[in-house]
Amino acid sequence: MPVPVLERARDEMLDYRGTGMSVMEMSHRSKAFEEIVHRAEATFRRLTGLPETHRLLWLQGGASLQFTMLATCLLRTRAAYSVTGAWGVKAVEAARLVGEVALAYDGEPDYRDAPSEIYVEGVDYLHATSNETIGGVRYDPVAVAPSGVPLVADLSSDFLSEPTDLSAYALAYAGAQKNLGPAGLTVATISDETLDRIPKGVAPMLDYRVHAKNGSLYNTPPCWSLYVAGLVMEWMESLGGLPEIGRRNREKADAIYAAIDGSNGFYRGHAASAARSTMNVTFTLPDESLTKSFFAEALANGMDGLPGHRSVGGVRASIYNAFPVEGTHALAAFMTDFAARNG
Amino acid sequence: MPVPVLERARDEMLDYRGTGMSVMEMSHRSKAFEEIVHRAEATFRRLTGLPETHRLLWLQGGASLQFTMLATCLLRTRAAYSVTGAWGVKAVEAARLVGEVALAYDGEPDYRDAPSEIYVEGVDYLHATSNETIGGVRYDPVAVAPSGVPLVADLSSDFLSEPTDLSAYALAYAGAQKNLGPAGLTVATISDETLDRIPKGVAPMLDYRVHAKNGSLYNTPPCWSLYVAGLVMEWMESLGGLPEIGRRNREKADAIYAAIDGSNGFYRGHAASAARSTMNVTFTLPDESLTKSFFAEALANGMDGLPGHRSVGGVRASIYNAFPVEGTHALAAFMTDFAARNG
Repeated sequence: MPVPVLERARDEMLDYRGTGMSVMEMSHRSKAFEEIVHRAEATFRRLTGLPETHRLLWLQGGASLQFTMLATCLLRTRAAYSVTGAWGVKAVEAARLVGEVALAYDGEPDYRDAPSEIYVEGVDYLHATSNETIGGVRYDPVAVAPSGVPLVADLSSDFLSEPTDLSAYALAYAGAQKNLGPAGLTVATISDETLDRIPKGVAPMLDYRVHAKNGSLYNTPPCWSLYVAGLVMEWMESLGGLPEIGRRNREKADAIYAAIDGSNGFYRGHAASAARSTMNVTFTLPDESLTKSFFAEALANGMDGLPGHRSVGGVRASIYNAFPVEGTHALAAFMTDFAARNG
Repeated sequence: MPVPVLERARDEMLDYRGTGMSVMEMSHRSKAFEEIVHRAEATFRRLTGLPETHRLLWLQGGASLQFTMLATCLLRTRAAYSVTGAWGVKAVEAARLVGEVALAYDGEPDYRDAPSEIYVEGVDYLHATSNETIGGVRYDPVAVAPSGVPLVADLSSDFLSEPTDLSAYALAYAGAQKNLGPAGLTVATISDETLDRIPKGVAPMLDYRVHAKNGSLYNTPPCWSLYVAGLVMEWMESLGGLPEIGRRNREKADAIYAAIDGSNGFYRGHAASAARSTMNVTFTLPDESLTKSFFAEALANGMDGLPGHRSVGGVRASIYNAFPVEGTHALAAFMTDFAARNG
């Protein structure tokens, strides 16, 4: 979380801009809170260029609830899923409780790669996960999807990390907790055309139409998280928007991947070259003993949170938007030095 | 929201107890956050006396998502609902998409009263709403429900307002935003016996068993809201716990009801005497013109938020836990004075 955002949230904690109230105690029907919602939407649309053909929804329950919600609303006969990691697997599991699922791409068992092109037809939609956090596998669903098939994507872990054409998605969604704001807020963008395809009889809280019709205020929204997300988006704009954020993220990831590629095989990247994530850089060392030394020395140099997910091991550097550019250069320098001493 | 809680949240915003991090940027798998969850559960169990036969779950989506979640998990053939207001109506609407619903009590059309006894049998569960915010109608579901029928209740708007035996409920749930914490957090208590009745094939995010098995960390929880709820519960304990909070709430409500009952009919309480809410006191004045003057004079005296819900009109004083005792005495004094001048 960017420090200027935390400072602002701290300073406005007991009195939000002269209202005498904390955002945490505002009614979601109050004028002050409605203004927060409108302002957040305006900032989001400026930042992403989301056109008026698409609705912006603030929801709850994270990507996990979206897995069920999107299938409930859109899976009529058969859907195609491109699976590049654990989040995609979960999305498929939830969809299979609703209807038939075909795997348009399956990165099993080691989930290192992503599709370069997808052919499907006659499906209700194609679902993709743009970035898989465990393997550090990333691709652009828009670039590989066939035209004429509604594209649905979980963008949770690389959302707002660079310019993205959200209008190319029938439905795109993301848990806020990586790049946008505090946990407990989910954002979804959905086209009016997609809303029209939702059948009657869907549970209100699982029905995108209900949330769209009520401007995301059908029930009490996570007010505080939405307020902080607004502050984060304003911070993004102040940096120069998504082009500048994308440039920084590319520089950050490139620094670490260069240390991997320049190590003469001491470090091995987990993800295939074409599918490398800019948010989660994953790699392994020659053996367990060196991996342990690596973590210990890194920690002694103030770099923590590097152990990879327990299901794959190795190293994972998660470098979301708020992670500083200098931090990745420091990590890359440490990696190069460690390899020279131990290779 | 209690001021000491807001101050604490403000002071810990950039550095939660020496971790160097904000709770808003913690991983929900971190040691620091796991400690927050454990501490919140321990405080909750001390405060409410919830026994080990029941699981405590931290969820998202508010009571509105619970309406669908509980029916999905527990409605097999037929359920009974006691409806005393708009929230009960919504609970029924969501349940009817899942299975058959019988109305065990229906306060339609004006929702002034609550059942004094409920007879039902052969149903999967009986659902009640303990407090209806619009009409200000409240009752104790435990006192009126038949034995042998699993009791399910929406306790959202009077949760933690006085001592309540949560172990009497198969499932009880509440959106946090009235007495417990910021919007975006939902709490549920469910018996192990009830968990065992949930069939296979329920969507993971709608399955109480999945959340129970994962200690409410199946997916990323609303970390910040949970942290603040912990602070609010510690504040409640510091006041003397639910007995003292209940005593204060009774004093607060009694002050306003006494002003209604002592006005020689100038004010008319909306709810039947036996069903009067301690959280939302609702009443009307003789005509629209006096009602308008009442609001205007009240506002001039620093009392706002008094207009009733648009569907019923009149006056509604919402006096949740954080509303001070003195505020209700000031309102009662103003009411008595206004009636004397205009009656």
